[in-house]
Amino acid sequence: MQSENPKAALIAALQKAVGASNLKVGGDVPEAALRDWSDEQGGVPLALATPRDTAAVAAVLKLCHEFSTPVVPQGGRSGLAGGAVPSEGAVLLSLAGLDSIEEIDTGSGLMVVGAGCVLQRIQEAAHEAGFFFPLDLGARGSCQIGGNIATNAGGNRVIRYGMTRDLVLGLEVVLADGTILSMMNRMPKNNAALDLKHLFIGSEGTLGVITGAVLKLHPGVGGANAALVAVPDFQAAAGLLRHAQRTLSGRTTAFELMWNDYYQAVLAETGQRAPVTRDHPIYALVEMQGADPDGDRPVFEGMLESAFEAGLISDAAVAQSQREVETFWSLRDGIAEILSRRAPTINFDVSVPLSRIGDCVEEIRAALAAAFPALQVIFFGHAGDSNIHLVAGPISEIDPTGHRIEKTVYEIIRTYGGSVSAEHGIGLHKKPWLAYSRSENELAMLRQMKASLDPKGILNPGKVL
Amino acid sequence: MQSENPKAALIAALQKAVGASNLKVGGDVPEAALRDWSDEQGGVPLALATPRDTAAVAAVLKLCHEFSTPVVPQGGRSGLAGGAVPSEGAVLLSLAGLDSIEEIDTGSGLMVVGAGCVLQRIQEAAHEAGFFFPLDLGARGSCQIGGNIATNAGGNRVIRYGMTRDLVLGLEVVLADGTILSMMNRMPKNNAALDLKHLFIGSEGTLGVITGAVLKLHPGVGGANAALVAVPDFQAAAGLLRHAQRTLSGRTTAFELMWNDYYQAVLAETGQRAPVTRDHPIYALVEMQGADPDGDRPVFEGMLESAFEAGLISDAAVAQSQREVETFWSLRDGIAEILSRRAPTINFDVSVPLSRIGDCVEEIRAALAAAFPALQVIFFGHAGDSNIHLVAGPISEIDPTGHRIEKTVYEIIRTYGGSVSAEHGIGLHKKPWLAYSRSENELAMLRQMKASLDPKGILNPGKVL
Repeated sequence: MQSENPKAALIAALQKAVGASNLKVGGDVPEAALRDWSDEQGGVPLALATPRDTAAVAAVLKLCHEFSTPVVPQGGRSGLAGGAVPSEGAVLLSLAGLDSIEEIDTGSGLMVVGAGCVLQRIQEAAHEAGFFFPLDLGARGSCQIGGNIATNAGGNRVIRYGMTRDLVLGLEVVLADGTILSMMNRMPKNNAALDLKHLFIGSEGTLGVITGAVLKLHPGVGGANAALVAVPDFQAAAGLLRHAQRTLSGRTTAFELMWNDYYQAVLAETGQRAPVTRDHPIYALVEMQGADPDGDRPVFEGMLESAFEAGLISDAAVAQSQREVETFWSLRDGIAEILSRRAPTINFDVSVPLSRIGDCVEEIRAALAAAFPALQVIFFGHAGDSNIHLVAGPISEIDPTGHRIEKTVYEIIRTYGGSVSAEHGIGLHKKPWLAYSRSENELAMLRQMKASLDPKGILNPGKVL
Repeated sequence: MQSENPKAALIAALQKAVGASNLKVGGDVPEAALRDWSDEQGGVPLALATPRDTAAVAAVLKLCHEFSTPVVPQGGRSGLAGGAVPSEGAVLLSLAGLDSIEEIDTGSGLMVVGAGCVLQRIQEAAHEAGFFFPLDLGARGSCQIGGNIATNAGGNRVIRYGMTRDLVLGLEVVLADGTILSMMNRMPKNNAALDLKHLFIGSEGTLGVITGAVLKLHPGVGGANAALVAVPDFQAAAGLLRHAQRTLSGRTTAFELMWNDYYQAVLAETGQRAPVTRDHPIYALVEMQGADPDGDRPVFEGMLESAFEAGLISDAAVAQSQREVETFWSLRDGIAEILSRRAPTINFDVSVPLSRIGDCVEEIRAALAAAFPALQVIFFGHAGDSNIHLVAGPISEIDPTGHRIEKTVYEIIRTYGGSVSAEHGIGLHKKPWLAYSRSENELAMLRQMKASLDPKGILNPGKVL
């Protein structure tokens, strides 16, 4: 039968593998499964499978491997790089059915979860158990932990807690041929040979499908001290970061920079009150979470005072309550409103070595102003993690495809030894620029890994490489 | 000529590649290069090459690849698993010539080093620049950072700063065929495709030769608060750890447990004064480093007081000075004297999920007592990182090869889902036990990576797998 109609045979076999109710075929595939948060356009998929356990995921992959049919793994589809959009004729493999929190081991400070668990549920479960799961991003209510791991998601508090990679103790992955590779390690220290999980963290579904994980939990947090400060220039901002890191003994949980263009824009677009005056070149949101924010306040304020005396700070507003901490964050989160007002925009997610961020921003600003005088650009980002976001747009009248603007920015990022993707990943969106941040030998090694782990090339084809 | 005498041809070519003064052949290979800190016996090497730069390392590998000759990379040869002992007929490749600190970027908080840099020099250079490089282990004065990275070294402060892996931003590696793979990333956030450096961190020289690294520096530390406390049982110890982590907002820099057998032994062997009485089942060394240890003291002492009230602590001695902090550590470091008095011993380096350490220790203790009634065993370790060390011996009259004792311990570790190597690596020493901690599918994947990256099998053959 297979030789007569392989598609029909595959569909029949998939129905058997996952159960008919867990397979949508052709026009029954829901509209939402056809796109993610990027503007990337995909192909028409063959079907959408939503297996309910790891064995069923393995069965789907084994079948697709036999039939040499592409597989596109999907989590919450909140990625910004197009990593989850369908390939033509692919089987979409949703992990939403693997959504159980299997165990919270409070004695070991870890949680065992299925890949389909929504991030916010994990955050809440950790909190209820007296712990803190620090990964946090705007899509928390819909993104799934498997997708967070597959893209090595970043977020606001990487400076203190690391990327998603640093929160993963163990992993369960299904390989391209359906082999289940369980690496569900529960120990912070385990040097029994190479740590294979790193082959899959950040691989964007191209080397295996993540089905479960052991997550590291951090101690519970009582609240935060925070300040919005103005600094005279980037050198002062970098000096303030070092000063804060040292004085607070590494407890800085966020160090977000907002250049004046961003600060003006967010105040204008959101109508918020300015915590400090609008005439400074750069603003920093500095936060220190802790068990006892009231007890920590003298140290935090002392850090600000000595920074002021050292000329690292020109002006500062210190949050007087947890609510005011949130108000300061709303300035940073106001980017969402700017984006909707200025659409279509290009939203860059780049990183350069921290000490060079100031020069790099000025070089990009000058280059864009010279090439596109009418273009609005605002700069901000997780500077403590070397990550700058810049938003350019609206672009519709200036560079409708965005390609020339992107080239201008990425050419500069390349000269700084920077990355074209700090945290969003490559997906489809950044593929044209990957070689700006990776050498020929690195690209060759990436292709070699792909060939070794997915020799038929069925896993998320066309993404990343 | 090669077909007539390939060994002579290889030696001539190596001399040309690294310079005659950087190649020792046959009997000229120094005695010290034939062994490491393990008791593993190696073969007779062909030569010892000490290239002075990455290009020369690449030339050595290219030649050995052409001649299908094994290569054994060597750092400070302080490994405890035999990863650096010679294979028969191998070219020993010392990285000692790549010993420069190339750059300290204080603005970015990073250091660029050659693989041959001795750890202590890196620690000192970081300190002089106002930073802290937290990796620390007994071999600090001779071990090289390349070896630390190749073995993903652990140490005492993993609970706060992570393993060596967590301190590596970028890596330069030479592949088996001499290809130089530069991944000298300087950004904490870089998601431009898979992070390939993790293929080499912890690979023990079997997948590539590390030649350089970008290291992450932590903020400078002013000193520490520390206490030696007695706890009523393991559950209390685990509760104390959680309490300390929460109350100190994650600033616990060490949480070392010493069971009563260890405590008695170290006091007897070193003649030190007992900071708390000798009649408690378990002792914990709790440390919190910080910028301002005097300022931090109230929080640290408050943590101990509330732990006492909660019944987590039975007795405590709090260090009154930095010197007393060191005195407490000398109890932990006294293991060196115990080892030399009790030789020959078996020194286990295992990990199990933290919540199960107490049960696991008691099960091992009972099993060893039943099988080897005359055997002395002491338990201690980096319990905050799930890592237990136990020392069994002298073994000469009881189990001279140690195999039966090892089997007894590792059988139990296996049932706990633990690791036969928490931090020392596999090398030659743990090879017989690797399958106790890795599944068949994991071992198959390890072999697949080896075949892909080193198809001729020249890199550190016979180690790990």
